[in-house]
Amino acid sequence: MPPTTKFLLGEDQIPTHWVNLLPDLPGPPLPPLSPATGEPAGPDDLTPIFPMGLIGQEVSMEPEIPIPDPVRDAYRLWRPTPLYRARRLEQALDTPARIFYKYEGVSPSGSHKSNTAVPQAYENAQAGIKKLATETGAGQWGSALAFACTLFGLECEVFMVGSSYDQKPYRRSMMETWGASVHRSPSDRTEAGRSQASHPTGSLGIAISEAVEVAAQDPECNYSLGSVLNHVLLHQTVIGQEAIAQLAMAEAEPDVVIGCVGGGSNFAGLVFPFLRAGSKTRILAAEPAACPTLTRGVYGYDFGDTVGMTPLMPMYTLGHDFVPPPVHAGGLRYHGDAPMVCGLVKAGRIEARAYKQNETFDAAVRFARSEGIIPAPEPAHAIRAVMEEAEAAREAGEERTILFGLCGHGNFDLAAYDAYLAGDLEDPEFSEEELQAALAGLPEAPSIA
Amino acid sequence: MPPTTKFLLGEDQIPTHWVNLLPDLPGPPLPPLSPATGEPAGPDDLTPIFPMGLIGQEVSMEPEIPIPDPVRDAYRLWRPTPLYRARRLEQALDTPARIFYKYEGVSPSGSHKSNTAVPQAYENAQAGIKKLATETGAGQWGSALAFACTLFGLECEVFMVGSSYDQKPYRRSMMETWGASVHRSPSDRTEAGRSQASHPTGSLGIAISEAVEVAAQDPECNYSLGSVLNHVLLHQTVIGQEAIAQLAMAEAEPDVVIGCVGGGSNFAGLVFPFLRAGSKTRILAAEPAACPTLTRGVYGYDFGDTVGMTPLMPMYTLGHDFVPPPVHAGGLRYHGDAPMVCGLVKAGRIEARAYKQNETFDAAVRFARSEGIIPAPEPAHAIRAVMEEAEAAREAGEERTILFGLCGHGNFDLAAYDAYLAGDLEDPEFSEEELQAALAGLPEAPSIA
Repeated sequence: MPPTTKFLLGEDQIPTHWVNLLPDLPGPPLPPLSPATGEPAGPDDLTPIFPMGLIGQEVSMEPEIPIPDPVRDAYRLWRPTPLYRARRLEQALDTPARIFYKYEGVSPSGSHKSNTAVPQAYENAQAGIKKLATETGAGQWGSALAFACTLFGLECEVFMVGSSYDQKPYRRSMMETWGASVHRSPSDRTEAGRSQASHPTGSLGIAISEAVEVAAQDPECNYSLGSVLNHVLLHQTVIGQEAIAQLAMAEAEPDVVIGCVGGGSNFAGLVFPFLRAGSKTRILAAEPAACPTLTRGVYGYDFGDTVGMTPLMPMYTLGHDFVPPPVHAGGLRYHGDAPMVCGLVKAGRIEARAYKQNETFDAAVRFARSEGIIPAPEPAHAIRAVMEEAEAAREAGEERTILFGLCGHGNFDLAAYDAYLAGDLEDPEFSEEELQAALAGLPEAPSIA
Repeated sequence: MPPTTKFLLGEDQIPTHWVNLLPDLPGPPLPPLSPATGEPAGPDDLTPIFPMGLIGQEVSMEPEIPIPDPVRDAYRLWRPTPLYRARRLEQALDTPARIFYKYEGVSPSGSHKSNTAVPQAYENAQAGIKKLATETGAGQWGSALAFACTLFGLECEVFMVGSSYDQKPYRRSMMETWGASVHRSPSDRTEAGRSQASHPTGSLGIAISEAVEVAAQDPECNYSLGSVLNHVLLHQTVIGQEAIAQLAMAEAEPDVVIGCVGGGSNFAGLVFPFLRAGSKTRILAAEPAACPTLTRGVYGYDFGDTVGMTPLMPMYTLGHDFVPPPVHAGGLRYHGDAPMVCGLVKAGRIEARAYKQNETFDAAVRFARSEGIIPAPEPAHAIRAVMEEAEAAREAGEERTILFGLCGHGNFDLAAYDAYLAGDLEDPEFSEEELQAALAGLPEAPSIA
């Protein structure tokens, strides 16, 4: 019989709890700071736009948080996700390494984002909220939230960055098919949008401002965020918990765990359960050279958004004014990273590497031609790192075990593959001056270096 | 614990044999006829473009045909596919019916087509063939063959219908990502293409002619077809075999099995194993009102292609000159249907119904908003039939069990959803005169009515 390719769990093995890593981190957690006062922001600062159920998860020091039954029930639409042994890729790379990947592209919206969209929609519906507003760039997050809202009978209003709205009409159609209304941002629906009419291509920062404004003004509407915050990372830990059970079926323990990092939620979801379990595995974060937050940013307090409306968060940052050059991995174009992930990088527990766009697409095409699945541009960064590790294993003559997160498929990213295959893909760079100017714009806040 | 949503099998439960229904059909099989002589076409007529391994499967009277190990091994990349209980759809329809669907969209190319692309690529590679040529319309078949060819080290050359090539650039990019070369058809690569330069939008008939010409002229290149032929239907029977095992897990037996029919392969793949098992279930074929082969065609010998190069096949046909009006379910726009499926319709074992485009998209959107998955336009026809059956069950107050085939996702069909949601989708019709003119063009051949 041929060897196993996919390690599968039954629905009764969907995790019953999320893993909250906050109590495991060294020292007391650094609080977010109010943008108005500079003082620590508490739960009350969040109630205008988040339900108490999620705020409780955001600040909880409980090591595990139960997953509500209706959320687990909705997870059954696509979870548990498969863990693959990449035998054909191993052969193509001629490596003694054993390569495993956890595939989140089987969710209806095609990425890991559904793991948090569902509990966010659920908690808001439980709180009597009728509508969620959010922003989306490339569209993965907006799609996931539109899907989750239709499951719990919520309206969904999405502000989509103008340039993406124009380039990715099918992501918009997907959200509308699930019943969401989608605005091209900047829109004339909000004060914030109207004030930015002179920036017609929009930005994630503007889109966030529009969504927050809608949520803040309508008592029946809340705001929803797809990464960065503690509760979002928490929800993603179903990924790593399942992966641990599946690797046990394969009788394997990882020597290295690899994920891509944008806001940090898919990475944390894969990695945190290994840390909770006390695993000594190496952990690698792969990010774009065009937006090298972990490898070239500074560690300090910064705004989560571009315009400076959110609390100040302790994280690696390129400065909230930093505008990453355009790469197709839209999900990784973020000036900061999740505070919990940044804390672990700062503590030396996580190693970070940055990759250029063309080398990530080269890796993605090699992956597609051996394993079949066409990866999204974001996890292509992880695949690039996997190939480095597989080569190192070959040179060392060691049968190392590599696990990586394949957080989504590339069905909506084929224009980028087209450009790569045609030789038209660039490796966009920023200048040292641009970076220094953005870093000079960091807000005044307590030093945490 | 919430009730089971997905019924899953392990990789060791991937079927070991395909189900060949040919020996079960009433009477001896009607032979295809040579287009040149009008005499029965034998295996020798097929050797210029097909390998003996597939020709043997095409004419075999063995009730079961073993699946080669390397094919089963490649199936592990996505098989067994899940069987879902559509509990949320049942609730939305307020029906006592139990609705199950077998989902083939988890394959890398997103449809059932990979089930036959893999064994076709394998048998050709075994025969020493270096390249496969084929045609594709909307792109599902070309994508599946490109994927399969990369697994077995074959080149792949795809002639894509010009209008689809222009409208669906991402399907082309997908094929190229897997290493295929894709031509806009009509192309200047072939005599057939050059002769049709005055029809710049192309047609499936022209694209078939181009691919066959390339295969016939190059001894290292064969031709590959994605539906209609016996061996293609054979390969798809993994679907129904798995579904039977999964329904047994659910302790359910279907009262009706429903699939969409274009060339007939996904339908046959789901249905034939139930017929082999002696199931008395009702069987429903759903087709487009714009191309109503089974409901309005005549039963007789006709060419498989538009230009009259292929053997004459015994089937329901609208006439090979019939040009179906443009609907988005490109995979269902075929003037004929698989002879084996047509024989069962003729014998009264299968009931056929035709649906208009807008009512199928209405059904697809309701499905997406309850179950999450956005269906391809082809299986949306099956979903429409499911809703009729679910309504009938409610009116009868009966807990009927419905199984249908969800043969692919709609990630590449969102422009069609966009048109539907905007109210711009048409229900294109043909005139009675057009149909009669096409039927008048049927070739002279033995009557089989």
